[in-house]
Amino acid sequence: MQRIQRGTFQFDTPPTVLGFAGVAGKKEGEGPLGGSFDKIHEDAMLEQASWEKAESTLQQEVVTMALDKAKLPASDVDVMFSGDLLNQCIASTFGLRSLGVPHMGMYGACSTMIEALINASVFVESGAATTCAAVTSSHFCASERQFRTPLGYGGQRTPSAQWTVTGAGAAIVGHGGCISVNAACVGIIDDLGIKDPTNMGAAMAPAAADTIKRFLTDTATAPTDYDLILTGDLGFIGSDLLRQLLERENIDLADRHNDCGMMIFDREAQDVHAGGSGCGCVGSVLCSHIMKQLEQGTLGRILVIATGALMSTTSSWQGESIPGVAHLAELRHC
Amino acid sequence: MQRIQRGTFQFDTPPTVLGFAGVAGKKEGEGPLGGSFDKIHEDAMLEQASWEKAESTLQQEVVTMALDKAKLPASDVDVMFSGDLLNQCIASTFGLRSLGVPHMGMYGACSTMIEALINASVFVESGAATTCAAVTSSHFCASERQFRTPLGYGGQRTPSAQWTVTGAGAAIVGHGGCISVNAACVGIIDDLGIKDPTNMGAAMAPAAADTIKRFLTDTATAPTDYDLILTGDLGFIGSDLLRQLLERENIDLADRHNDCGMMIFDREAQDVHAGGSGCGCVGSVLCSHIMKQLEQGTLGRILVIATGALMSTTSSWQGESIPGVAHLAELRHC
Repeated sequence: MQRIQRGTFQFDTPPTVLGFAGVAGKKEGEGPLGGSFDKIHEDAMLEQASWEKAESTLQQEVVTMALDKAKLPASDVDVMFSGDLLNQCIASTFGLRSLGVPHMGMYGACSTMIEALINASVFVESGAATTCAAVTSSHFCASERQFRTPLGYGGQRTPSAQWTVTGAGAAIVGHGGCISVNAACVGIIDDLGIKDPTNMGAAMAPAAADTIKRFLTDTATAPTDYDLILTGDLGFIGSDLLRQLLERENIDLADRHNDCGMMIFDREAQDVHAGGSGCGCVGSVLCSHIMKQLEQGTLGRILVIATGALMSTTSSWQGESIPGVAHLAELRHC
Repeated sequence: MQRIQRGTFQFDTPPTVLGFAGVAGKKEGEGPLGGSFDKIHEDAMLEQASWEKAESTLQQEVVTMALDKAKLPASDVDVMFSGDLLNQCIASTFGLRSLGVPHMGMYGACSTMIEALINASVFVESGAATTCAAVTSSHFCASERQFRTPLGYGGQRTPSAQWTVTGAGAAIVGHGGCISVNAACVGIIDDLGIKDPTNMGAAMAPAAADTIKRFLTDTATAPTDYDLILTGDLGFIGSDLLRQLLERENIDLADRHNDCGMMIFDREAQDVHAGGSGCGCVGSVLCSHIMKQLEQGTLGRILVIATGALMSTTSSWQGESIPGVAHLAELRHC
């Protein structure tokens, strides 16, 4: 492995994705990417007793599907990296406990999918592990009642609000697959003082801009070197801000940029305001729609930048602003 | 790096601790290890507006102290791994945001210190980073109001309850120091069905026993090969259970075992019932009292097993049991 700059490094023998899966809820299934998911759940409860248990089930299911595709049993996974948005990451813990796999819990809010993928890749390339897994999830109903208001309250959503995706994504990392993880950039916590918890895109855009700028500078590459620069869940407002912030740095994303939060829902037809969000947004989109294209070679070389808003209800109640973080991975068809 | 078994690996060129610091609150300062901490805060608020902000201040302070001892500026840290017990890990986020360091958030409950140290060590040995940091904290008052009852309510504590440590620990990892990280074992989530949230030691003991057994088996070593086998915060009840569980496996910890939760308070004089707990327990004890002995060589080769109870108030309200996890690192004077 080769350190390029602080937090930016390249893999000498790039680890690869051996299997991947993305699952989603009913609303996500009705969106533009509905045909790409491995499974769509019509029932938000997944036949469980609570939304939180349903989210745990999503994690267990998605990693099992990804392992099936990799033709590996769970007992072949050396270390599993996972996280979610629920307090103390219980979707991960309770979803994955029955698998009996060494487990490292991650917390990077909605940036967790790439955080987990980076760690899984570093463990594999270093030789500490032969096979790792990266898993994340989110659930609209579980998130709404934890972070905002009880669903039954019927609170009005602001135009800048994003819709937490019900979904999960998993990638099995090892050697011998046809999607490689070539480089990574660990995000710096960035805080421009945004305090509006209904405008997460604005809170996360500065971190995304910083990570993209750092990575392009550190690797001496330009947006045109990539077929796609995919952000996690900035949504429509955050994506506009990202482009503005990068233009100030003379970085033009032009037609290379897209955002999982913009892709997963139909903005007009599905009434999601500023787009999708949540750990399961980039998780389910990356590990289905995007990885399928990387596998086929219709995408050759891309950057994925998952963005997270590092706040809690307590920090917002105490008047704090919302710091953001964005982790980047370079993926290639190989 | 050399993978030995699932989740167990050895470092070919062991990374080292370049600087370490442990800070604590008033009650911890009055305990048997009071003379070892780098700083003791008489005021639980640390002159902040809330206990949560005070905990953030502990993280910022302790990593700054560890960097000072390592004679490194924050700008030399490639990646910082940190976590805590607060919802969405806000102690870490808000404590470390001003440092401008690439940041990976961890969540392993009270196992986070060793989880972070393992990741920091893997990043350094792999070449992805030159210098990393591992940081954790906990705060008695912030934890009580988040997990249990408001402090003003004056709830009666059960005999099996542990006292969340107000404290933090930080270790700077790189090459050239005199405490090395030689091997590690990533814990498997273990759940024997304990549902009593006032008996965390019992919930975590099976995971600790499993990790210790796996590591000793994988490395073909015995407890007598180590000067100390230090668990994170099983406390008195959990430590008794650990010894019983290991005796069934014909593993006798004998006089080699101690526990940070048993060491940090005076059981009789300080009325802490089953001992100390919290991310800051193993964090502050390891990164002061223990590392000082490793530095001096009065401890030569030890195992540190940090244990975490992977629950939330929501999971307990929903009738779930409390899964545990335990991550292990082998440290040596070098």
